[in-house]
Amino acid sequence: MSTPKAKATRSDPSRAVAFSDAVIAIVITLLVLDLRPPETEPGGLLAGLLDEWPTYLAYAASYLYLAVIWLNHKAAFTRIREMDIGLQWANLGLLATLALVPWPTAVIAETARTGNLTDERVAVALYALVGALLCLAWLVFFAYLARHPDLTKDHVDDSYFARERPRALIGVVLYLAAGLAGFLIHPLVASVIFLVLPVFYAVTSHGIDQGPALLRGRADRD
Amino acid sequence: MSTPKAKATRSDPSRAVAFSDAVIAIVITLLVLDLRPPETEPGGLLAGLLDEWPTYLAYAASYLYLAVIWLNHKAAFTRIREMDIGLQWANLGLLATLALVPWPTAVIAETARTGNLTDERVAVALYALVGALLCLAWLVFFAYLARHPDLTKDHVDDSYFARERPRALIGVVLYLAAGLAGFLIHPLVASVIFLVLPVFYAVTSHGIDQGPALLRGRADRD
Amino acid sequence: MSTPKAKATRSDPSRAVAFSDAVIAIVITLLVLDLRPPETEPGGLLAGLLDEWPTYLAYAASYLYLAVIWLNHKAAFTRIREMDIGLQWANLGLLATLALVPWPTAVIAETARTGNLTDERVAVALYALVGALLCLAWLVFFAYLARHPDLTKDHVDDSYFARERPRALIGVVLYLAAGLAGFLIHPLVASVIFLVLPVFYAVTSHGIDQGPALLRGRADRD
Amino acid sequence: MSTPKAKATRSDPSRAVAFSDAVIAIVITLLVLDLRPPETEPGGLLAGLLDEWPTYLAYAASYLYLAVIWLNHKAAFTRIREMDIGLQWANLGLLATLALVPWPTAVIAETARTGNLTDERVAVALYALVGALLCLAWLVFFAYLARHPDLTKDHVDDSYFARERPRALIGVVLYLAAGLAGFLIHPLVASVIFLVLPVFYAVTSHGIDQGPALLRGRADRD
Repeated sequence: MSTPKAKATRSDPSRAVAFSDAVIAIVITLLVLDLRPPETEPGGLLAGLLDEWPTYLAYAASYLYLAVIWLNHKAAFTRIREMDIGLQWANLGLLATLALVPWPTAVIAETARTGNLTDERVAVALYALVGALLCLAWLVFFAYLARHPDLTKDHVDDSYFARERPRALIGVVLYLAAGLAGFLIHPLVASVIFLVLPVFYAVTSHGIDQGPALLRGRADRD
Repeated sequence: MSTPKAKATRSDPSRAVAFSDAVIAIVITLLVLDLRPPETEPGGLLAGLLDEWPTYLAYAASYLYLAVIWLNHKAAFTRIREMDIGLQWANLGLLATLALVPWPTAVIAETARTGNLTDERVAVALYALVGALLCLAWLVFFAYLARHPDLTKDHVDDSYFARERPRALIGVVLYLAAGLAGFLIHPLVASVIFLVLPVFYAVTSHGIDQGPALLRGRADRD
Repeated sequence: MSTPKAKATRSDPSRAVAFSDAVIAIVITLLVLDLRPPETEPGGLLAGLLDEWPTYLAYAASYLYLAVIWLNHKAAFTRIREMDIGLQWANLGLLATLALVPWPTAVIAETARTGNLTDERVAVALYALVGALLCLAWLVFFAYLARHPDLTKDHVDDSYFARERPRALIGVVLYLAAGLAGFLIHPLVASVIFLVLPVFYAVTSHGIDQGPALLRGRADRD
Repeated sequence: MSTPKAKATRSDPSRAVAFSDAVIAIVITLLVLDLRPPETEPGGLLAGLLDEWPTYLAYAASYLYLAVIWLNHKAAFTRIREMDIGLQWANLGLLATLALVPWPTAVIAETARTGNLTDERVAVALYALVGALLCLAWLVFFAYLARHPDLTKDHVDDSYFARERPRALIGVVLYLAAGLAGFLIHPLVASVIFLVLPVFYAVTSHGIDQGPALLRGRADRD
């Protein structure tokens, strides 16, 4: 019932969105903290900077990944009308796993610096694990919304979030596969996949679902 | 009286909410900064990562704790209509104590790494102290609102915040008890309690008070 | 003229407020980064934690200072209707100086740890300098608003911001005097003044000006 | 067409603005992290602080640069009505490059500390490269808006963003020229240019385009 009391105790998503934006903004900027002046002998700065290329690659891949996450988060929340405690926790689970991303990024950058192959295999496996965990958190988030159509806006197709689930599941599989390939074949293979995956993901996601909110919005307008 | 001047000098809570969200988001993300690449010999990364498990536990417990705090903060502010200077300071006191959480978390993680039992006892006592301080800050916050019903929204039961006080008081006692148990019995006991407490707290809080805003909102709607 | 074009090119303060809130929230939380696990011998954690008391004092003083700044910032902006480029820069100058606060705080904490009296004198002088700079930034901010009454809301007394200027000027003098006292007499004198000053400031400010927005709002309502 | 569905799938810029504000606020505050207590012998704090002057200069220059960027970002977004996925990525590219600024700032500060001339040349070249990259990101952003007039507000002149492009291009050239001058002549030359450039940029930008939103808003009002 929409009595004044009920209205006040319902939770519109605005504060959860602001909180999520702040967390994602902090995480994406924390990545930059790994870009530090290299510790080199006097006169060795140029060589030191060039040696850090794996850090730059790891920074670029993680930035791209988090940017895609933010766009997906935004696309999902444009369809959410109100949140219950279950959805709040699904969102907090999402934030917890995405906040982990700078950690395996730093581990990869560190092992690339020292150049031990065993460590590099472990590092890409860790990155793959966190990537898979993050996709799992998305899966939980989408599955919760699919089971609670009353939380989405009226115009949103009830099957929308159900159709998002396979994409999250594919992400879990792909990150684990990339980690396995990096562990068994060569860490560089995994690193390249980590860089390509978000790009591939961002592009294909628009095709499969007839495009995300943003693209479709433009199409609707034309 | 609601003259134009009075309206402008009254303080609606929107900016305090935005500021609190930013502080809590930063604190929850600062925890991640403790997840750093372990300093290991070449080839020892896997063992190094596995050795860090107390850090992961401490990270999980503190994340959970801060997430519950954020949800409670949100539930409280959906009931606040406007803020006076006293409530502003009660809120700033809350933010000051919750911003302390990453510090004992890092101390626990550090002592778990070095493995000295005396230090571990001190570390869990420190965590318990900060946890108790935080519950004390909630107690002040709830007590202030209980004494100033004119600051809450019209539909909010005048006894609502009075009934929140015992919960905060129980938190003070439970954290001190956990710290004492960790100090006298074994630090691991306290660590496990720190992990369980926010879960227990989050779950029971919904039962005792007929559920928080979010759950009740759903019930009202059905 | 209030043509559609003019309206769009005018700048309402909402984005500057959100940006300022984010900066102040980050700065106030950065202070916590100085609270780190002390580097002690195994078994020496308790002594190590107790030795850090000047850090806790410095943290408390700076937190208090920044909290008062945020409340003043909020009180000022409830009176601002729109911003021109000059006011934007005055606000950015304010943010630049308040972002400096964690730096002398860390320097004081560091020198208190090493205990060299000459260094402690320099440290409190540095803190006093930054405190005075910050009050100077407020002076510029208030003076700009006093000269541009068209930027404030209609109901705001034209002399309001003119009357805020002496308070900022007194701050400049008081911080320099505290620094001088700390340098000439003893650093501890300055440290205590730094802790008392924001309290004193927060309390008296309400008296002199018939109270800030928040207190007056309550009075108007009664 | 503006059916309820189309409305929901369109993307208004408010969340992108909040996210950008958070990122820029974090980046501008991260700069302060480089202002740390200098590591000096007991009694050598004053000399240590004075020796750090290049850090202060680098801090001031980067703060100024990021402040100008934020003002330009704000001026651009007051003209944007809605965002498509391309504009989202152009904005995320902008954020990625501006988040890099603290890194060459720290490298310059570090080399100034060690005083090796070869390293200083490399450091200013790196800063110039990041500065040029950032102007390139603006160029992409403005060019995208120039090609998509349907994304801007009705009252915005269709040639507005086309006219912004040369300014961004000049920035690319000026930063590369400053880097080259610093590399060939003396790093100090580049450092001074880096400090002057944002000032010069902020001032002239108002002249060329009949002033930005803020200044013009005041003129329209008079």
